[in-house]
Amino acid sequence: MSQVSHRTVPRVTAELYVEVQQFYARQMPLLEARKLVEFLETMTEDGSIEHRPGGWKLAGRQQLLAEMRARRGDPERPLVEEISARDAREHDVAYYDGLVYRYWFDRMHIEPAGEDTLHVRYQAIVSMTDAAGKVSFEPTTVVEDVLVRIDGELYTRSRVVTHDSPAWADKIHNPS
Amino acid sequence: MSQVSHRTVPRVTAELYVEVQQFYARQMPLLEARKLVEFLETMTEDGSIEHRPGGWKLAGRQQLLAEMRARRGDPERPLVEEISARDAREHDVAYYDGLVYRYWFDRMHIEPAGEDTLHVRYQAIVSMTDAAGKVSFEPTTVVEDVLVRIDGELYTRSRVVTHDSPAWADKIHNPS
Amino acid sequence: MSQVSHRTVPRVTAELYVEVQQFYARQMPLLEARKLVEFLETMTEDGSIEHRPGGWKLAGRQQLLAEMRARRGDPERPLVEEISARDAREHDVAYYDGLVYRYWFDRMHIEPAGEDTLHVRYQAIVSMTDAAGKVSFEPTTVVEDVLVRIDGELYTRSRVVTHDSPAWADKIHNPS
Repeated sequence: MSQVSHRTVPRVTAELYVEVQQFYARQMPLLEARKLVEFLETMTEDGSIEHRPGGWKLAGRQQLLAEMRARRGDPERPLVEEISARDAREHDVAYYDGLVYRYWFDRMHIEPAGEDTLHVRYQAIVSMTDAAGKVSFEPTTVVEDVLVRIDGELYTRSRVVTHDSPAWADKIHNPS
Repeated sequence: MSQVSHRTVPRVTAELYVEVQQFYARQMPLLEARKLVEFLETMTEDGSIEHRPGGWKLAGRQQLLAEMRARRGDPERPLVEEISARDAREHDVAYYDGLVYRYWFDRMHIEPAGEDTLHVRYQAIVSMTDAAGKVSFEPTTVVEDVLVRIDGELYTRSRVVTHDSPAWADKIHNPS
Repeated sequence: MSQVSHRTVPRVTAELYVEVQQFYARQMPLLEARKLVEFLETMTEDGSIEHRPGGWKLAGRQQLLAEMRARRGDPERPLVEEISARDAREHDVAYYDGLVYRYWFDRMHIEPAGEDTLHVRYQAIVSMTDAAGKVSFEPTTVVEDVLVRIDGELYTRSRVVTHDSPAWADKIHNPS
């Protein structure tokens, strides 16, 4: 176990690191606030979000918007009955009704990959707070994003979410 | 949905971003350790903390110190009976007795607002670990701080905590 | 409560802050992925990990590797019966079997201590996601690391984990 260098990728500069942090600090509150059009403007036109294992991939702002409008719900509405993410898609249920959800990111690793592309890897967990104040957490995930710079601004081109539970899509979303 | 710039505020420099991170990394452990006087020295003399919705606003180090001394408790003492934040204030109960609480911040967005003022927005969740090792979480929140620089040092001038549950003040604080 | 400077240590530069963040973002996923040899290569040869209060200290890559191989388990195996961390050591049980564990760090405070040494303090919580998607959390901790730079690379020389529950080692690890 020799002390050779572990780093085989270009070192990210502090300015770029902070820019990426601030990008996510602008992007994710839009999704949490259900500002779906504004959120999708932080992705490229062909941007995609994929859930693994055994999940689905949605590509392009229109497809993403349709799915999010149908699923993201409204915190002012009552909680839905117990349902899984997969069943919510099958039966067209807005399974985030009645919930304020927040994404918690950690361990962000940033690797420049060409002049205008970044590979960003982080772990994420989603908290859900209901109107009564109950807090629950979805299973942990690891996320791999590709960010691209267009006319000076960062955009998410693709997001691959790998869930730590293979049963993530079939478990009850927010058990009581 | 055109790819126009989303940024209408000055870009924070990496040095400032890190200074703010380190400010919070000094400030919040003081509150967690119940070093209340030292914590309040990280706020301006007229500093305020407000809880929304349906909460209260305390302003000035003396008012904050009186409230915190009465409420922040001691992790060495037994847990109190089940009580809400509002009732703890009404009946003068140190509802953090028996608990180590820790603040978890994420998604910190920093905007310079004038030469010596910063607007900082982040989400926060409080964990509570009791002596037996039970962990619970208070409802999630979004926090908006105004930081000011005085003689080169950062201070919190105001903190507004918006709780994600409208019932936050009336729910049992740390249900068994 | 005068507004004197709270800072008595050298200010960390943005570049160093980011380098430390990226160090942990490389280091900790190795432990989570049970890449134990690779994880230990991010520590010095004599690196140590100590758990307080009432815990144990392991020093040197060989001792750490033996302990981790015996305890860190395999997420593909079934969950073990309910057991504490102390009993898992006594009865040689891989008490992380059946679990994906992730470390969440926050409030990282970095202080240069000499030319090639850093003192890093942060709070940490471990999430555990089982195959069914159940999420639980271990009691919160405060961690103090000493990092050293050797041939340009950062390594952990020592890690002291102070658990917020004095009963941490004797509580059931992942209660059902």
